[in-house]
This record gives sequence, structure tokens and C-alpha cells, in this order.
Amino acid sequence: MATDERPRARLPSGFDDLGAVDVIERQEMIESLLSTYRLHGFAPLETPAIEHLDALGKHLPDLDAPDEGVFALRDDDEQWIALRYDLTAPLARYVAQHRQQLPTPFRSYQCGPVWRREKPGPGRFRQFVQCDFDTVGSASMAVDAEACALLGDALERLGIAPADYEVRVNDRKVLGGVLARAGVVDPGTQLAVLRAVDKLDRLGPDAVRLLLGAGRRDASGDVTEGAGLTDDQAGTVMAFVGAGGGSRGEVVDRLRVLVGDDPTGRSGVEELAAIDSALDAMGGAPRVVFDPTVVRGLAYYTGPVFEAVLTDEVLDDKGRPRQIGSVAGGGRYDDLVRRFTGQDVPACGASVGVDRLLVALRTRRADSDARRAGPVVVTVMDRDRLDDYHAMVTELRGAGIAAELYLGTAGFSKQLKYADRRGAPIAVIVGPDELERREVQVKDLIAGAERSTEVTDRDEWRADSTGQHVVPRADLVATVRRLLVPSSPSMGPEDSP
Amino acid sequence: MATDERPRARLPSGFDDLGAVDVIERQEMIESLLSTYRLHGFAPLETPAIEHLDALGKHLPDLDAPDEGVFALRDDDEQWIALRYDLTAPLARYVAQHRQQLPTPFRSYQCGPVWRREKPGPGRFRQFVQCDFDTVGSASMAVDAEACALLGDALERLGIAPADYEVRVNDRKVLGGVLARAGVVDPGTQLAVLRAVDKLDRLGPDAVRLLLGAGRRDASGDVTEGAGLTDDQAGTVMAFVGAGGGSRGEVVDRLRVLVGDDPTGRSGVEELAAIDSALDAMGGAPRVVFDPTVVRGLAYYTGPVFEAVLTDEVLDDKGRPRQIGSVAGGGRYDDLVRRFTGQDVPACGASVGVDRLLVALRTRRADSDARRAGPVVVTVMDRDRLDDYHAMVTELRGAGIAAELYLGTAGFSKQLKYADRRGAPIAVIVGPDELERREVQVKDLIAGAERSTEVTDRDEWRADSTGQHVVPRADLVATVRRLLVPSSPSMGPEDSP
Repeated sequence: MATDERPRARLPSGFDDLGAVDVIERQEMIESLLSTYRLHGFAPLETPAIEHLDALGKHLPDLDAPDEGVFALRDDDEQWIALRYDLTAPLARYVAQHRQQLPTPFRSYQCGPVWRREKPGPGRFRQFVQCDFDTVGSASMAVDAEACALLGDALERLGIAPADYEVRVNDRKVLGGVLARAGVVDPGTQLAVLRAVDKLDRLGPDAVRLLLGAGRRDASGDVTEGAGLTDDQAGTVMAFVGAGGGSRGEVVDRLRVLVGDDPTGRSGVEELAAIDSALDAMGGAPRVVFDPTVVRGLAYYTGPVFEAVLTDEVLDDKGRPRQIGSVAGGGRYDDLVRRFTGQDVPACGASVGVDRLLVALRTRRADSDARRAGPVVVTVMDRDRLDDYHAMVTELRGAGIAAELYLGTAGFSKQLKYADRRGAPIAVIVGPDELERREVQVKDLIAGAERSTEVTDRDEWRADSTGQHVVPRADLVATVRRLLVPSSPSMGPEDSP
Repeated sequence: MATDERPRARLPSGFDDLGAVDVIERQEMIESLLSTYRLHGFAPLETPAIEHLDALGKHLPDLDAPDEGVFALRDDDEQWIALRYDLTAPLARYVAQHRQQLPTPFRSYQCGPVWRREKPGPGRFRQFVQCDFDTVGSASMAVDAEACALLGDALERLGIAPADYEVRVNDRKVLGGVLARAGVVDPGTQLAVLRAVDKLDRLGPDAVRLLLGAGRRDASGDVTEGAGLTDDQAGTVMAFVGAGGGSRGEVVDRLRVLVGDDPTGRSGVEELAAIDSALDAMGGAPRVVFDPTVVRGLAYYTGPVFEAVLTDEVLDDKGRPRQIGSVAGGGRYDDLVRRFTGQDVPACGASVGVDRLLVALRTRRADSDARRAGPVVVTVMDRDRLDDYHAMVTELRGAGIAAELYLGTAGFSKQLKYADRRGAPIAVIVGPDELERREVQVKDLIAGAERSTEVTDRDEWRADSTGQHVVPRADLVATVRRLLVPSSPSMGPEDSP
């Protein structure tokens, strides 16, 4: 094959591979999340990656290509099909399709990749994993309360302290009511208000006040057009935005005053009050707070919305402190199944962004056990004695210890480097002398990790006794097992023999 | 929204949803497979669903649509991208891209969906899951031997008895040598020979003999053209095909005679002999047999090929006995990385077809634990006492028992039906009387499964004491735990208290 015919080994922009450490850490996190979902009574569901485009809610233009945002193509029957861009649209399709066979309420969780045809950037991928849970078919606010409590439970089971996160809850009907009461009814103006409120975290209240009114000129001189509210109207919105703080009951009381007798607003406030009661019945859930500044997905949801936010600061790549922010979000979406069936089917769910949460968890750990999750590597020093080496590997595997024989052709020092690159916790080293004496050398690569990179040949390595154990051949498995135990995350030092 | 604007809730042809029982069973199987891969020293790798089309080895015509067989579309930069159709092509791309950073040999496993743009049919899906393991960078036949032994180990850990499976091994160089020695050198003729041999299982030796020669007329009168070999040539192929049976060493001896001094053939025979030696060193692996009729993927592989076959008969949907057949396959593919880099990189791996293997495992079990994997359902009989019900759910979850409060609006008998549909092993039933007496009723839905469908109201149900336990409120968790233990697959009846 001529050189210029060779394909280049690369991925499309916005896609990435995950190596062993990444896969292990992510899988552990996902398993923890899903086990929390199961503990709360959700059952697994898996839908395929591909759906009909119309089932995803993307409407088709007359053009040759459908909306941006999805990877779509024509099926053999000329219908448009597309990779799912979230797990909620497929769930709505599934429930609409199988409603008669499903229990009501239907409580399911899903975990899998979704795809977005968007401009990729640093940390912005076009394939990423979501872990969702949903309750379909119940209008009870106990469902929304449970979802908020579950998010907190899931974070705590991942090792995040209660002081380091909040689940912030709002209700789109409350702001709707506040705006209606203030006479802000034009949808475009309402959207501009939402966009302004959404910038509160980043710009602060003074800037938001300007954005609600005539507009704002930023430090660079750029002008952002305002929502055009009167001073009174903007004051009402700012009062709403400032209604947070204190207990959930206190926030409800403030909001009740702000919405007055607007029916939509009252309905939203009563939803929040019902969530508060249900949380109290569940045992309090002090990390669930009511926060009128939560705007996320207001266009998508029909009632309560919530997000789980990590509030502690972490250091970024450049050592600057910053907040991770939102790692999960959800809310009530009563209209999604109706798209298909015409029937009202109330529903509420949440989605955890696995990749962002994983970044947050990583910053909490100096080093991960996953870096030493490789197999025990039995090195080969005497190629005439492969039977003996194979027997060691077989014994280790028989004891449930991941192990492999070195299968390459390199010499000893490269075999040790290989073991290190594999993330092996232990290397077994047996030369002709040891075979003769029926002994084995068991090298603890975690204890010896610092020096191992300097080893260049076996004699030098011999002098480095860090983490090295010479034991009778019959004690191989017991020795390896003893060395592996302390690094097991499930056992503290006080549990080790 | 007008009725005719509603999308229909359905999936594209060839795609399917998996409900809770299916997801749980498949996940258990995958976890077992992957833990066997890890035990043998393979580390996880995850590549994205989408690759550049040229990296998948599909060559682009000038047409608007690329080859059949893949779901492809143009990326925003006008390059063709596509859903992967197996896990081997992405692995080759990954190794070519990251070779300098990877240990040699590179031993990885992957598990994930792949997509084929093919005509769907019964049991033929366009998305399915593969679990692969591969060793890249070692030419040692110990790698191929380990792969065969691993496949056997993986099947046995899934509960398949040694008597019920075989790992069948062949080497494409052996048949190549046999054909070369018989003077069959035209590639088209060689391919026709492969196709004929591949039909041995289905048609038997007499029909294959005809297909090797002038051709064959089947029972319906249809004529299949033959490969056009002479009688002598066809006899040689039939001798090769009949060289199986007995120990691996016996097959090697027969093949050695058949290839004579053809260098390719001899090289193939010596590869098989080396695999035999390595298997002996690993402890025998008696279920790995040499079988010259194994043809699979000969066009794709460069040396040894193997497949794991379930040999026992199962009953199909219509009660007819049939063999499941091949559930995994693999071999040596020394050319795949060279496509990218031009460098020789020897490699060997295998792929387990998860969905087919799951079908095989299901036929072995009358019923699955997964059918009762739902949560404990706490029913609601007195809506004024939600705090009490919530407290029970919280206690159960705190003890690590999956539990939920019934969140719908139905009456008692429908709540029991709900628990049954959810696959709940237990329902907790507490009415005003029980609350007064500080008692709870714990209903074992597994013991009571047969009668529960007949229950129409609470009084009738009261009379049905099957699996029903009335205990003090304080004993709720202990009672639920005691009832759950016997159904746990990890504990037999003798382990329960």
C-alpha cells in the first residue's frame, strides 16, 4: 500500500478515547450512581442509539439536511433517523409506545451515550454519557421531592460532603406568575428576562438590573440590549430573584407574597410548598434549597426545576480556584409523552452529567486506585521454563487475582517498565536461581513506584529492595494477596491483617 | 397539536428497546465476561461510536453515499464519518494513533454497541453489543493459545459445563498450503473452496464434495455452481476437511502430512503445534480442539482462527431441538494496524456476541432472578399518614434495600398489581389498624405470585395468607431482609438463617 493511500489514525473532532484509568474511574462512578437509583426503586431501561428524527422532536425542514444539533441520515426507506441527543426524548417515545404494558407510575433509569452535533471545544465533546432517572405517570410533588433527595443521596454516596453541594429548586410557574402580575406577557420579553436572570451568578445583581431595563455596556464597550422593562417591572423581577435564602418555608412565604393572586404563580408556590412537605416527611433533606435564580431548562420544563451544584472551590489546570457548578439537573415535563399520544402524562426526572461530575470527583483525590488497577505481571527470565511461569499465572487467576504472563520479547528491565505502564500493582520475578531454590520474588510496584523509573538493568534493580519480597514458591498467592489488600478501597488500614 | 401532526411512537426497523429484566440479565453476563477478561490481564478501553469512515476500512466511492454496511454521514468539514461496525477497526486506529504511549504488548478489552446497516430480520438487529479482548504487539502463539483458553474460561464462569462447548481452532495458512500444494492458486477458486467448506455443517460431506467439483442441484432443483476442482484436488480438500477428531496432537500430525513441504502450510501447522504446547503449559485446556472445518473470517485473519461453539441442543420457539452454535470468534490479524502506519504490528483477539450468548444462557434457566429484581414497594392505604410510610422507605434504603413509596393514585388492589408488574419481591402493607397497633404486613410476592393475580379487593386478599407476615413495626427491616435472602443467587438455602 502506498504511503499516500494510508488513512491517518485520528478521530473526528469532538470525540475522544478513554484509556484504562478513565474507564475504570467512570465505571465506578456510574455503578455508584445507578445503585443509588436502584435503591430508590428505579429499574433499568435501555433504548437504542438511533431513533426516528421526528420522535426526537426535531422538525424537518425541506432542506437536504435536518436541524443542526443532531447527527442525522436517511434510512433505507428514505425516512430521517438520528443519534439521540438526550435520554428523555427516547424515554417519552418508549412510554408512548408501550404504555399499556407498563406499570403506572413507570420508574426507570437509563445510562448511555448521547450525541450533539455542535461545535466542539475544550472540554466540550460531541459524545458524552448521561445517567437519567424518571418517574412517568404521577403528578404528585412527592416525585419531584424524591428526585431532589435522590440527587443529594447520589452525591453523598460518591463521597461529596453535605457542606459541598446544594440541590437548588425553582418552579417555572412562579416566575411566570410574577411576570404576569407585573404585566410582562410578551414571550420575547419573558425570554429576555430569563436570559438576564441566568447571568446573575456571573455578572451580579447590578448588571442584571441593567439588562432587565435599557441594556448594559460591558468593560470592553460592547452593548447588550436590555429586556425593556419599566423600573417597577424590573424591581419586581429583582425582588423575585432576591427572594432566596433561609429555610425552604421562608422562601415559600416570600414567593407567596410576590405572586399575589396570579393563579399560575400561586400554583407554582403551592408546588414548592408540597415539595417542602414531602422532603420533611422523608427526613428533612437540608441540602435541598429553594432558589428563585435557577433558570435552567425553563423552556423545556412545565413546573418544578432543579439542579445539583457543587459549591466548594477546586483548582483548575492553572491553579486558579473555581466552582465546578451544576453537575445534574432535572424537573417536571408533563408534555413530552403527549407529543405522541395526545394524552396528558405527567412526568419528572433528572439527568446527571457523568463526565463533568467525574472531573469534580478527580479534583478531590490526589491519586486514584484506578492507576494501579492493572494485573499482576509475571515476568519471563528463563524462556525454557514457560511451564513454570504459566503455572504461577494459572494459580493467581484461580485465586481470583488478575494476572498475566509477559508475552512480549523484551529483556528484564523493559518487562518491569511494561508492568509499570500497565498499572500493575505487583510484578513476579523468577530467574533460574529462584527456580532452583523454589523461591519467587514478589515486587510491590506501588511501594517501589518512585524508584522504578530509574531502573535500567537487573543488577541495579537487585540493589533496590524497596517493596521486594523473596518468599517460598508455595507462598506466592498468599504473598500477592497480602500485598494487594491494603490498596483495596473497601478496606482501611485498620482492617488489614 | 392536530392529530395528524403527531409523530408515531416507533423505532426504526432493526432496532429494539431492552426492558428491566433484559438489561439486568445482559449486564450480569457482561460483568462476568469482563471480569474474566480482567482476570487474564486485559485492561479496559473505550472508543467513541463515531470514526472517520476511512479509519473503519470502508473505501469511498464517488457516489453520494458510501458503502453499504455502515451508517455514514458527512461531518461539518465534509469528511465522511460513520458509526463503527465492529470494535477491531477502532482498536487498530487507537493503537496506530497512540503507539508510542502504549505498553507493548497492549492488552485491552472493549465492550459496547456496534452498528450494521444491513437488512434486519428476526433476531437480526442493526445495533448489537460486542465484548472484545485483544493483544496487540506480540507474535507469540502463546497469545492465541491464551485467547482460546480465555474463551473457555469465560463460558465456564457463565455456568456453561465443559461438556457443552468447544473452542475450535484452525489456521488459514494450513488450508492455503493444502490448496497451493494441490495446484489451486486462483484466488476466486480458493474463495469458492472456502464457501463450499463453510457449508459442511449444514449440507454434509457429499454435498460439499459436489460443490468443490462441478456443482450441485439441491432438492428444489436449484443449481449451485461448483469450484471446478479436479477429482484429485477435491479429494485433497476433503482429506483436509476430514483431518479433525482426536487430540490436538493427532490433528497436527495429520495436517503435517497433508501440507507436505509447502512453506505456508508448514508455517500454519507449526503455529497450531505451538498453540498446542502453550495450552499444555497452561494446564491442558481439553475443550480447545483443532478443527480444519473452521472457516470463519478467513478473509480477515492472517493465521490462527477460532470460534467458541455451544454443542448442546436447546429447544427453539417451536419446541424443535437445535444447536446455538458459535457464540464467539477471533483470530490473528497482523495487518490491521499496518493499514495506518505501514509498520507490521502483530495482533490477536476475539469477540463475544453478547446477544446470541444471552439467548443461549436463557434457554438454560427456567426463570431468572432478574424477574424479581424490583424494589420493595411500600403501599399507601392511609394518605394522611405519608410521614409513616416515608419513614419505612427511608429505613429500608438505609439498610441498603431498594425500596419505594407507591406514588400513584390507585386503590389497594391496583397497588398490589403495580408491585407485581414492577417485579417487586415484597410489598409492605400498612393500614390504619396496623398503624394503630404499630404492626406492618410484609407480603412475600414470590411465594404469593400465583394467587396475586386473582386478588380483587383487600378483604379477599386478607384471606390469602400465602407469604404474608404480620410483624411489629420495629421488625420491618429484619423481616424484609430475611425474606430477601433465600432468593439471592449468591446464597443457597443452607446459608440462610
